[in-house]
Amino acid sequence: MLTKKQNVFFISDSTGITIESLGQSLFAQFPGTEFIKTVYPFVSSEQEARRVIAHIKTIMDSEPTPPIVFTSLADKSLTNLFLSHDIPVLDIFSTFIPLLESRLGMNASHTVGETHGVGSPLKYVQRIEALDFTLNHDDGTKISDLENADIVLTGVSRSGKTPTCLYLAMHYNLKAANYPLADADFESSLLPGAIAGVQDHLFGLTLSPGELHKIRQERRPNSQYSSLEQCEFEIRRAEAIFRAANIPFLDSTSISIEEIATAILQRLKLRTRTSDSQPFSSQSATQ
Amino acid sequence: MLTKKQNVFFISDSTGITIESLGQSLFAQFPGTEFIKTVYPFVSSEQEARRVIAHIKTIMDSEPTPPIVFTSLADKSLTNLFLSHDIPVLDIFSTFIPLLESRLGMNASHTVGETHGVGSPLKYVQRIEALDFTLNHDDGTKISDLENADIVLTGVSRSGKTPTCLYLAMHYNLKAANYPLADADFESSLLPGAIAGVQDHLFGLTLSPGELHKIRQERRPNSQYSSLEQCEFEIRRAEAIFRAANIPFLDSTSISIEEIATAILQRLKLRTRTSDSQPFSSQSATQ
Repeated sequence: MLTKKQNVFFISDSTGITIESLGQSLFAQFPGTEFIKTVYPFVSSEQEARRVIAHIKTIMDSEPTPPIVFTSLADKSLTNLFLSHDIPVLDIFSTFIPLLESRLGMNASHTVGETHGVGSPLKYVQRIEALDFTLNHDDGTKISDLENADIVLTGVSRSGKTPTCLYLAMHYNLKAANYPLADADFESSLLPGAIAGVQDHLFGLTLSPGELHKIRQERRPNSQYSSLEQCEFEIRRAEAIFRAANIPFLDSTSISIEEIATAILQRLKLRTRTSDSQPFSSQSATQ
Repeated sequence: MLTKKQNVFFISDSTGITIESLGQSLFAQFPGTEFIKTVYPFVSSEQEARRVIAHIKTIMDSEPTPPIVFTSLADKSLTNLFLSHDIPVLDIFSTFIPLLESRLGMNASHTVGETHGVGSPLKYVQRIEALDFTLNHDDGTKISDLENADIVLTGVSRSGKTPTCLYLAMHYNLKAANYPLADADFESSLLPGAIAGVQDHLFGLTLSPGELHKIRQERRPNSQYSSLEQCEFEIRRAEAIFRAANIPFLDSTSISIEEIATAILQRLKLRTRTSDSQPFSSQSATQ
């Protein structure tokens, strides 16, 4: 059957990352449709809004079905400008802000969103430090100060350690090191010396030998490294090490970097009961 | 004035990343309040929902103000379970899905969200390849195959190249290399030989000398490298190179990684009129 195509526009006074992600999660509920997305970030003046309106109008004139338009604009007069040009919008602000105003018993500030802004200088520095640390401690390159890591991922080559560490650093400001398990480590079931001292911060990644074989084949086809036999051996030995040392571990087969990161945070309780990732609480307590 | 504290719960059958981000963007409109967030990911069974309900109930009993609870659960019976326990929820699904159903003229599938799932195997491989490429081409370490990059960032040391490249790879599957401008490059206003051949993919980052000085001071305090004079010199020369070669560039002073990445995508028109980042269109055109 032919896939139905649907134009979607995301209009934001900031990056548009949040509404695009919201749209994506909603569209996943309509698998029969192909959504053709356009993001208009940084729309914060009447002039820019009019430029976007003109563009959307042109596309509307050439398409049989009306577009879906998500807006996230703190300045209500800009949202109204779209409405006054007969562009039907799903406005995140007017949907939720009045509800929150009533719950919180206060008015919204209606300033341009800063969700993906720098936030406080302290948070920015923490983020860059976390990324620097993570890059310096990728793939066991530096093991001298692993005790400064918030988390140390371990597992066989190509089990997803590096992308997960980068995600944890980028989005949760965590210093995430990783240590690859390799041949020498498989001779015993003890934790390798390099990471034995940081057991409390260790988390293991494993995956199915078949999946690992497929991934390694992409990298070094038909090598000893990528053979199913070698993959089976390494996975078996790695899991034996995790179990013997009582290291929590996760099977990353067919799950995304976001899902792996979320599951790790959940297991290590790094993401609950915290206001740390709320970058506006400390600097804006003046109202 | 004392900051008001407000408990917030995010309950998702997937990672919870989208609703947490949505909440964050809404809460930024209420700077007088400190939001204490708890994310409950992977809530996809009645048993897990009941566990979360019990937890929230305990907190509700000990706090004077009721919590704000965001839910994103494809299974409506789970959302109803919260309501039946007198937990007032802001439900993303019931807010938007009926609207979209009516616009699209079709029913939602009500399957557990996959926004941050693996998506198609092809997209997953592209993402990992982009990250591998980006890590291999960080900081000018590998310049032999720069022509395979989707984008090459350049600028002085500590101008934000590496974090931005990692973000572009992680979230947009872009092969993002970066090349640092250093002393030898400042002797002329011509593009360094290493990147002269990829002019079409080049993008420059600059920042205020004062900001650069501050950042470098953190790294190597009171060095020649971090002196304001050196920072001023490097920035002046780097911008001269960008202008002479007609390279688009951006001032990254006080803006976030997400904002830099978004501005680059906007300038290079890498994020508009595409359905590429919609991972469900091709594999699910069977409905």
